[in-house]
Parts: sequence; structure tokens; C-alpha cells
Amino acid sequence: MLRQVTLEDIRPIGIGAGILGTGGGGNPYLGGLHLASVIRQRGPQPLVDPLDLDDEALVCVAGNIGAPTVSIEKLPEGTEMLRALRLLEAHIGRAFDAIAIAEIGGANSMQPLICGLLAGIPTVDSDSMGRAFPEIQMSSFLFDSAATAAPLAMVDAADNAAVLPVAIHDRWAEKMARNIAVSMGARAGLVGTIMSGAQLKAAGVHYTMSLAHHLGCRVLEAQRQKSDVPQVVADALDGQALFRGKISDVHRRTTAGFARGSVRIDSFVSDDQLTIEFQNELLIARVNGVVAVTTPDLICIVTEEEGEPVTTELLRYGTRVAVIAVPAPPQLKSETALRVVGPGAFGYDVAFHPLPGGVIGWRPKSG
Amino acid sequence: MLRQVTLEDIRPIGIGAGILGTGGGGNPYLGGLHLASVIRQRGPQPLVDPLDLDDEALVCVAGNIGAPTVSIEKLPEGTEMLRALRLLEAHIGRAFDAIAIAEIGGANSMQPLICGLLAGIPTVDSDSMGRAFPEIQMSSFLFDSAATAAPLAMVDAADNAAVLPVAIHDRWAEKMARNIAVSMGARAGLVGTIMSGAQLKAAGVHYTMSLAHHLGCRVLEAQRQKSDVPQVVADALDGQALFRGKISDVHRRTTAGFARGSVRIDSFVSDDQLTIEFQNELLIARVNGVVAVTTPDLICIVTEEEGEPVTTELLRYGTRVAVIAVPAPPQLKSETALRVVGPGAFGYDVAFHPLPGGVIGWRPKSG
Repeated sequence: MLRQVTLEDIRPIGIGAGILGTGGGGNPYLGGLHLASVIRQRGPQPLVDPLDLDDEALVCVAGNIGAPTVSIEKLPEGTEMLRALRLLEAHIGRAFDAIAIAEIGGANSMQPLICGLLAGIPTVDSDSMGRAFPEIQMSSFLFDSAATAAPLAMVDAADNAAVLPVAIHDRWAEKMARNIAVSMGARAGLVGTIMSGAQLKAAGVHYTMSLAHHLGCRVLEAQRQKSDVPQVVADALDGQALFRGKISDVHRRTTAGFARGSVRIDSFVSDDQLTIEFQNELLIARVNGVVAVTTPDLICIVTEEEGEPVTTELLRYGTRVAVIAVPAPPQLKSETALRVVGPGAFGYDVAFHPLPGGVIGWRPKSG
Repeated sequence: MLRQVTLEDIRPIGIGAGILGTGGGGNPYLGGLHLASVIRQRGPQPLVDPLDLDDEALVCVAGNIGAPTVSIEKLPEGTEMLRALRLLEAHIGRAFDAIAIAEIGGANSMQPLICGLLAGIPTVDSDSMGRAFPEIQMSSFLFDSAATAAPLAMVDAADNAAVLPVAIHDRWAEKMARNIAVSMGARAGLVGTIMSGAQLKAAGVHYTMSLAHHLGCRVLEAQRQKSDVPQVVADALDGQALFRGKISDVHRRTTAGFARGSVRIDSFVSDDQLTIEFQNELLIARVNGVVAVTTPDLICIVTEEEGEPVTTELLRYGTRVAVIAVPAPPQLKSETALRVVGPGAFGYDVAFHPLPGGVIGWRPKSG
């Protein structure tokens, strides 16, 4: 287990979180630069083992909400996470003890570290997805818990702020927060999903910061050794290298606030074709038209040579890629969870086809 | 001056506020039914003379935000104003002493009375427009004042809630509040624009509830006497009956959150044509192509026979109407104000052509 995040950890966490982002979650590079500047000023950020949390501890999640495409062009002011945290603390009249991770996938792996460092409180090594999803209610902290997405607080780079004290359900909190984020220029810092240590212990996908770090280290090591990096990624996540080939077609359109589309990959060695449908994240994979992987199981695209993550907005003709299929953590596969993150939640008329096996990636690791 | 609002006052206030709404502000009929039910339970609502307010009194405005078309179909739960008020009080940690009127025009004339009655505090006989405008920043309380639109609080019929603690300027508060209102189904109760009694005294358009009531009473009296009701309306507002004729064409489309369009009226007695461009409210009137009236001056359409207000969404071919032009209150005609409510603020490349005279309607009246 990782006990703290230092400058040296940022690169492997970025790679690991990029792969776990399943095409979404935003590119961790800029977030990594931001985190590095804060670590240089304040030192490493401590990580808390979720099982060591006091049951009465007050915890919330911190992350960016908005369009990943915008987050590449519109840089943060830098204190968004801290200002949102202070605003939420003022609203509820209590101070938080630790920051949990909303989504380990992509750029939002860095924000809870930045938030904790600026606020002087630790980050919990546990997230609510073990991957990336686009909407607030898609969180294991919320599926079977008394916790709710609201109250939440949002701020932008220019000091606009909003608090949502209550929402009739988490989907409604998502709708309101999404529209506020649009008003804020499609990028805002958000702090919410207030819970106790006990609630986090029961509902979180634990040790995913450690997992991202471990995955990134194995990728970097395999790159140095010129070994088969995609296979190393699959092994590290207890998944399978499902398909290898060249991207031969990409359809992408922006509708209803999502980057929706599909990508086709032609096999290097046969006439087989893999198609993947995506909505920010990669959601349904079909081999020759037959459903092979379905959300919430993870569909990760990495480059064939280097095993580096390829986010949805970077998919383009000709890239040589490998597709890794990884069984989702058990927290995402309950009946309640599947109503929120299964294929039907994204409008696909496809049943969830769980991949066999796969709990290694989501279990505490030694060392 | 009106000292309180009783059941009998609702009908004349509705007519007067409908005319002052210049086509927008929503239809006061449903708001009037709501107000009547609250008055039956709790008695009349006291009105405070703005000049009698304590300089240190804490005042805010209350009203609906959203699309008037939606407000006809989607009824309120009833306590939106009160819940928004309590939420804002909790946020700032102080209780309000009185409720001011955001806009006297249309349905929002009723909400500050309902809010005050439910909260047990009086309503101030002063508003920020003397008419209706579509956006939050279009308020005399904000033009030259230290008051700001945020903090503000919003709630919907289903108990979703939002607080905007701060916005970098009032236009940004409008953008955020508008998008939250959209998330809430295009109708929400909003309380904000916190100010002191001294600020309200300096910036408000005073006695406009009394004016709406007086205007409505004169219309009802003229209807009974079968006199020339449009001329009575013009006289009561120190305006002029600009044009009389039959609606011969209506263009209406919903773009960027507004009902935009134009209406053409053919004269009863000549070949003259009047065209009016509108964005929720009636904004620019041209006689035979020559600009005759420009926002913020009031363009009021009433039925030729009864002198009843015709709101923008009810404009239709064949209606016999009179168009009354009324000089805006002086508070809307300063240089600062015209940047926010003049023709340019609505995207028209037309200078403000102030109508001559016209302060009678905006002055305190005896009796």
C-alpha cells in the first residue's frame, strides 16, 4: 500500500489512473503538473488506509465536474478544491477530517490529493468507482448508503460559487450541478457526498490509489524492459488482453452533454473486428457484432507498444492499440448498482454480461 | 397609498401588474388564486411605505424565475417562496425584516405578498423595475448600489434547493440561476438581492404596488362605465395611446431561453402599421418602420374593448388591441441603467429614444 504521494509517484499514478479511466475521466497530465507544484510547496500528501478511518470521521469527495475537453484548454485558478471545501464546511458548520476520491480514473485521481494538501487533511485511499463514470450518482458511496450527493459545493476559477443544500435524489443533484458547471464554463471544482468513516468503509472501492500507482509502476517497468506492456496491464488488473489491432474507424459526436460514438478496431492477425460504443467512457465492446464486455466492467484501450492509456477524445484512425477487459469491482455489480451504472443506465438495450473472475485488482495489496 | 392587500385587491392588482408587465412577467391569474388562498388563511398582507423603512432593516426580493409558459402548466407546491427565504436566512445567519418586489409586472407582483404572508413579515411597496424584465441583473436595486444579486437561494416544488453564495457579477448570477431554474423544470422560487432599508430607499421604484392597484381599479371602473378603457390606462400612467388596430401577423420562436419575435398591428383607421419586437417583454415599437418606443420605456398592449393586458404568449392574429406607450421611471434611464436595460442590452442596434414627460405614474400618490 502506498502511504503517501510524492513527486515520484505522480507519473505512475497518472498512467494507472489513465488506464482505469476507461477512456474518460480526463487526461491526468495537467492535474499531475498542478499536484507537483503543490507537493513542491507543501511536501508529500499522506494517504489513509480506509479501514483505519475512525467510524465517526467526516469525509467528502472532491473532484472536477465538466467536460474533459474543456479542462485541457481552460486551466484552473488552483484553489478551486480548497474553496469548495471551505464553502461546504461553512454550510454544514463542521470541518472535514479527510478527502475521499470520487473517481480514481483519469484526471480526478489528482484532485483529492491537491484538495487534501491545500486543506491540510489526508486523502483516503478509496474511491467510488474503481474507474471513471460521467455522472455524480454513479458512485458506490451512494448506491446502498444513507449518504447523498447533496449537500455539495461548487466554485469556478473566477470565484463564482454555488451550494446545493438538498436534492430530491442524486440524479437531480447531478442535473443541477451539471447545469451550474455549464454556467461556470464547463469546468468547476466540486466537493460533496458527505459521509462518515463507517459509511466509506462499507461502500468504497478501497486501495485504488495504490492500485493506480502499482499499475503505473508495472507499465513503466515493462516499457523499460521492452516486454509486452498490454499483457502486463491485463495481468496487473486480473483482466484479459481482449483484442489487438489498428483503429480503422471513429464516429464521435457531442450530444446531450456527452461525447458519444463508436470506434472500430481491425485485428492485426485475422479478419476479426472489435467495435466499442462510448459515452465519454468506453461502455460496450463487441467482437464481430457479439457483445463481449459491458459496463460496469472496464474496457481499457492502451497503445500497443507502450501500454499508455488512450482517452476517448484521442481515438483516431491508424493508432495501434490493445484492448484490455477488466471485471468491475463487486461494488458496481449489485442489483442497485447496475441500475445506475449498467448498460441500461446509458440507454443501451443490452444486458450486463459480467466478465469471469477478477477481484485481485480491487483487493488490498501488500508491499 | 395602499396600506394592505386584501382579497378584493387581488383582481385590480392583477390587471395593473399585467399591463405594467409589458407583455412579460407571466400571467397574474394563477398567482392571484394562490395569494387568495393564503389571505383566506392568514388575513391581509400589510404593505410598508418604503420611506418608512428603517435604514438598517434587512430586505430581499422574492419572485419566480423560469419560463412564464411553464408557470401556466406547472403549478407551485405553495411554500417555495418561504422555503427559499428560510434557506437564505440560514445561509447568511440573519432574519429578514421585509420583502421587496423584484418586478411589479405580471405574476411576480403576487409572489412578494405570498412570501411575506407565509413568513409573517410585511411587503415593501417598491420594486426594481416598475415593469417586467427577463433577467436578474435588470434591477434598479443593483444598478448603482452596493447590493448584489447573490447571495440568493432557489427552491422548486419538489424540495430541490440551491444557494449561490457569491457571483463575480450580477450577470453571472443570472446565468447560474437560469441554468439551475432549467434543472428545476423551468420554474423555481428565488429569494435574493439582499439590501438595507437605506439602499432600497435610494434605488427602488416606489409605490408600484399601489400604482398597479390604482391602475387596475381605474380599468375596472372604466369597464363598468363603458368608457374608452385604453385611454384611461394611458392617462393613469401619464402615457399615450400610441396606436389602435388589429393584430395582422405574429412571429414567435423560442431561442436562447427567450420567446423572441415580432407582432404587426394594422391601424383601424389608416394604412399605418405598428410593429413591435419582443423578447418575453415588448421592447421596440416602430410605426411604419420608424422607431417610436424603445426599452426601458413601457410598451403595453391591452384589448381595445376591455383594456385587459395581452401577454406576449397570447398575441394572435385578429385580436383588436390598443398599444399604450409609457415613459419608464427615471431609475431605468441613467447611463448605468441603460447599459443593462436599454435596447443594446437586448441586442438591438437602436438608440434609446426616451418618451417625453411621464413621472406621474412613478410618484407617491395620495388616497
